[in-house]
Amino acid sequence: MTGPKSDRPRVGQVLTITSFANPRIKDIRALDMPKHRKERGVFVAEGLKLVTDALAGGWPIEAFVHGTEVGDQQAVQNAAAKARARGADVLSVSTAILSKMVHRDNPQMVLGVIGQKLAPAADVKPGKGGVWVALESPKDPGNLGTIVRTVDAVGADGVVLVGPSVDPFSTEAVRATMGSLFHVPIARVTEGEFLTLRAAWPGTVVGTHLSGAVDYREADYSKPVLLMMGNEQSGLSQRLAAAADQLVRIPQAGQADSLNLAVATAVTLYEIRRPALRLAPGESA
Amino acid sequence: MTGPKSDRPRVGQVLTITSFANPRIKDIRALDMPKHRKERGVFVAEGLKLVTDALAGGWPIEAFVHGTEVGDQQAVQNAAAKARARGADVLSVSTAILSKMVHRDNPQMVLGVIGQKLAPAADVKPGKGGVWVALESPKDPGNLGTIVRTVDAVGADGVVLVGPSVDPFSTEAVRATMGSLFHVPIARVTEGEFLTLRAAWPGTVVGTHLSGAVDYREADYSKPVLLMMGNEQSGLSQRLAAAADQLVRIPQAGQADSLNLAVATAVTLYEIRRPALRLAPGESA
Repeated sequence: MTGPKSDRPRVGQVLTITSFANPRIKDIRALDMPKHRKERGVFVAEGLKLVTDALAGGWPIEAFVHGTEVGDQQAVQNAAAKARARGADVLSVSTAILSKMVHRDNPQMVLGVIGQKLAPAADVKPGKGGVWVALESPKDPGNLGTIVRTVDAVGADGVVLVGPSVDPFSTEAVRATMGSLFHVPIARVTEGEFLTLRAAWPGTVVGTHLSGAVDYREADYSKPVLLMMGNEQSGLSQRLAAAADQLVRIPQAGQADSLNLAVATAVTLYEIRRPALRLAPGESA
Repeated sequence: MTGPKSDRPRVGQVLTITSFANPRIKDIRALDMPKHRKERGVFVAEGLKLVTDALAGGWPIEAFVHGTEVGDQQAVQNAAAKARARGADVLSVSTAILSKMVHRDNPQMVLGVIGQKLAPAADVKPGKGGVWVALESPKDPGNLGTIVRTVDAVGADGVVLVGPSVDPFSTEAVRATMGSLFHVPIARVTEGEFLTLRAAWPGTVVGTHLSGAVDYREADYSKPVLLMMGNEQSGLSQRLAAAADQLVRIPQAGQADSLNLAVATAVTLYEIRRPALRLAPGESA
């Protein structure tokens, strides 16, 4: 994680950038590459909502970038001031430059360069939600982001990535979380580390599996649940399946082979959390 | 829909193509553009599984394209022969050409040029699944494809797109269906046409909505359900919300504002179909 350096002024600078060749712009564009994200320990959050969520969650912020033409909007100024006070530089850039920095299917006038934060493996233990989701080597950034969003929505405790996995800080994954990235702890462990966590889990370890004999609605979720989901191509590995107390299946009625990973995770999480979830007045659906 | 023309020979030709400039290759690449798909009435299905599903479902096929190096694989030969017998040309192309024709995040050695088929509005009536999903102006092709896949998995009857919507025949939408596109009827109607369908619906019309007062688990799904889902940005419009018999909400417990559209649809469908879904031996999860 790269936070503000100790020799940096406490309040960030305000800079107007007019050239594509500016090294800050080049650096931010290079954060599209996993290697550069890894080296730098930061990532790009696109859009005022995501950047505001990052600030509200107390995440480190290195730069706050906005289109010149939105610089006088009150919401942008408020977020920029908050970012500056945390040591972020505020970069005002032209639309031409900004359009090269954001993904074209989702044009945004604000972005933030945010410090990566992962939860330590020791945090993978039952919290007030009583359920962690373990994802074995997920491949699709949209699925991962959507699962983080769902984990937030159902009030589960967090997500642990097991083995080589898509980067949760890729732009597509970050965007799919819709800001839940900044509320939901995400841990990354090897398979060996996961099996150690599993051994210490003070509840039930549930896996979803092709050969699961138990209907997902009939499993025992009375104790804290560690829910293991396999990846998009191959499902749960035999090694992780063997580590489950219960292997469950979601019944299907049509010709589809399987469910999308984010859908299967959501349907199972809504079942696990079924007794705890209630409508509250003013709650959004 | 563009099926085989009456003046085309009954069995397709077998062609080896070695130039990017070949007009067939240019035409297929141009199917990435919504305008060209609309004019031509066909779309591209990537991967042997999807093309095999299209053939099994009896969809019209105009061309079967494979990489030269997979031309001697038995499964490819079988599918190619089936496609030819339906009047499709079989195009053998080099990897260099093929790699320009498929989306790079999902390299495939086979693709099909398939005729578009939409269900007529008159088909939007309760079938054996007892539920149709109405999507109001969905924007994201991945969400639409994932919903079609889920509709198939739960055994619902079909999907009706209401108003301007993302193209169900875009490559990303087609891919996300994982073949369910070829099993699930999809209709497209204007809002006015939908309100006429709604008036004739012989069951319950349910909408999910921010201001829904009914927990989605407590609604009455005993009669055939027409489930209305709003779009990713703005949810269900007031006009469609006003057309519902029941407005339901999915409870949430965390800081997330909302659920992903495909997730919300799946969670609601699994609830509507709850009494009908049972594990069967050998069923996949």
